[in-house]
Amino acid sequence: MPRNQQILLDNRPQGEATVGNFRLVAGDTPALQDGQVLVRHHYLSLDPYMRGRMNDSKSYAACQSLGQVMLGGTVGEVAESRHGAYAVGDKVAGMGGWQEYSVVDGNAPGLLRKVDATQIPLSYYLGAVGMPGVTAWYGLVKVIAPKPGETVVVSAASGAVGSAFGALAKARGCRVVGIAGGPDKCRYVTEELGFDACIDHRQHGDLQSMSAALKAACPDGIDGHFENVGGYILDAVLLRANAFARVALCGMIAGYDGQPLPLQNPALILINRMKIEGFIVSEHMQVWPAALAELGALVAGGRLRPRESIAQGLAAAPEAFLGLLKGRNFGKQLVKLV
Amino acid sequence: MPRNQQILLDNRPQGEATVGNFRLVAGDTPALQDGQVLVRHHYLSLDPYMRGRMNDSKSYAACQSLGQVMLGGTVGEVAESRHGAYAVGDKVAGMGGWQEYSVVDGNAPGLLRKVDATQIPLSYYLGAVGMPGVTAWYGLVKVIAPKPGETVVVSAASGAVGSAFGALAKARGCRVVGIAGGPDKCRYVTEELGFDACIDHRQHGDLQSMSAALKAACPDGIDGHFENVGGYILDAVLLRANAFARVALCGMIAGYDGQPLPLQNPALILINRMKIEGFIVSEHMQVWPAALAELGALVAGGRLRPRESIAQGLAAAPEAFLGLLKGRNFGKQLVKLV
Repeated sequence: MPRNQQILLDNRPQGEATVGNFRLVAGDTPALQDGQVLVRHHYLSLDPYMRGRMNDSKSYAACQSLGQVMLGGTVGEVAESRHGAYAVGDKVAGMGGWQEYSVVDGNAPGLLRKVDATQIPLSYYLGAVGMPGVTAWYGLVKVIAPKPGETVVVSAASGAVGSAFGALAKARGCRVVGIAGGPDKCRYVTEELGFDACIDHRQHGDLQSMSAALKAACPDGIDGHFENVGGYILDAVLLRANAFARVALCGMIAGYDGQPLPLQNPALILINRMKIEGFIVSEHMQVWPAALAELGALVAGGRLRPRESIAQGLAAAPEAFLGLLKGRNFGKQLVKLV
Repeated sequence: MPRNQQILLDNRPQGEATVGNFRLVAGDTPALQDGQVLVRHHYLSLDPYMRGRMNDSKSYAACQSLGQVMLGGTVGEVAESRHGAYAVGDKVAGMGGWQEYSVVDGNAPGLLRKVDATQIPLSYYLGAVGMPGVTAWYGLVKVIAPKPGETVVVSAASGAVGSAFGALAKARGCRVVGIAGGPDKCRYVTEELGFDACIDHRQHGDLQSMSAALKAACPDGIDGHFENVGGYILDAVLLRANAFARVALCGMIAGYDGQPLPLQNPALILINRMKIEGFIVSEHMQVWPAALAELGALVAGGRLRPRESIAQGLAAAPEAFLGLLKGRNFGKQLVKLV
């Protein structure tokens, strides 16, 4: 029985999250029962939604219990199996959490899926060809539903969701404008990801400035927006939205730490006859196969080239996670465990 | 050629609208040309959307030009006709504006429609069986799309839109909760309109109090909301919304006069996976026939009993309009011109 290191949620953040909210523990992995699979995690995914779950308040997911392993997506390989569908060495994706190993019920639908790591790097199943990619796909295809030639905007454009969104929107003939923090990220967004323009929010840190930047980058106005951040960026988008614009609301990271961030002028939703829709991709499992197929083809064809920030070893996860919340990552934030 | 009194927009409001923004003038009606119809207005409709058009800022409609007759819905009868489809004495509904007579091109689609005033009072074609009724229908049927047993809420419940919304929602098996100002309006909403409950916003003038009142009136939470007002009522609804709740955004009257009213916690749209959609019923003409047929049947069957506030004579229109913006009307606000 291999030793297993785990990171637990020790206590809830008061305002900003800190490394002191987490606790590293170690123990033996339990012996498998019939139907169970032991997975050795190669990569752990860090995602903004985890911050929301750390609070004890109403969120879209049940909140993370104190003293339990932090929940999170993982990819790895089967280390031991007492289930006929899984063999030792199979590559799998699942929700193993912030730990080195997990024991999974092989019969429970949706907990574990086998993936092909010969064509696509294993880690991509946590990003472009995983939950973040499907999130981008759902927001673009099901909420925004753009026509060719329309202009769509995405915040956190260099991240896992934003980069997938850009490739999917370009494939549909849209003008795609990203918002990202700093010149390096903006350069990556336009030069490597192929966005038509990218706005550096560090250069445009207030509503008026961001609104002017959006006006310049979107000469025909904004028809669709994918919101990963919230706050003044969404306010600015509303000022530049065309009639019948659609906003897919996926993240409100800017408000997690403290007081709610208001939307300054909701009357614009009426004035522009807009639709704003919040969603969580795990509630729309029926779209995953089609979305993953398209995302896999974009990656295989070189039209979606994700970038990754990789922290080394489980103990580095809390610090990497806090950096993600501050935008210190560059591309999909992962923790390499093997 | 009969004399025609008209009310023009003389100057734009600075903050709150006043009677000084309007000007009453009189002149002769012009001689008809071929294809034209002269309509004598019996009733003028006053509606909150007119306030938005008085500003020089971006609104959903082109703004009202200075020195022009105020735009507005009218019902009346044909006084003179040089169009084969209209005979003197025909009852018609149209957008004749704030004046006693209008000259209408009988060939222009949608400007004038003949109505049957033998079954339904002529004035109802400006309310329950007119634009306000169809507005309620669109928001309920096309945006909220409720299932039987779901709870829906509407602000300004005793008004033309709210009362129609209630009857349409009851016909679909919903629990219907209204919000109105004062005990008389609330009593009318529950006793005469058949709502399941009505909250007096004068008794619940802040977010916390309104949220508590909604919790009591909506024990199973809120699945759909029709927003006629904006401001803290919408904030309170978001606090009580169920997962996948839908908000039809139709009016933001509270913010017309001054600074935009923020939405306090837009993250709730994501947390509750809500949809918020603004719309203008005049952009959805394809639903009017079905909506008007249902509304007419509800009125004829006594299941929708609209109430009217009627001001006498064109000169009373500005004062009546300003009263409407302050909620002084009780039911559909009209001006009787004949």
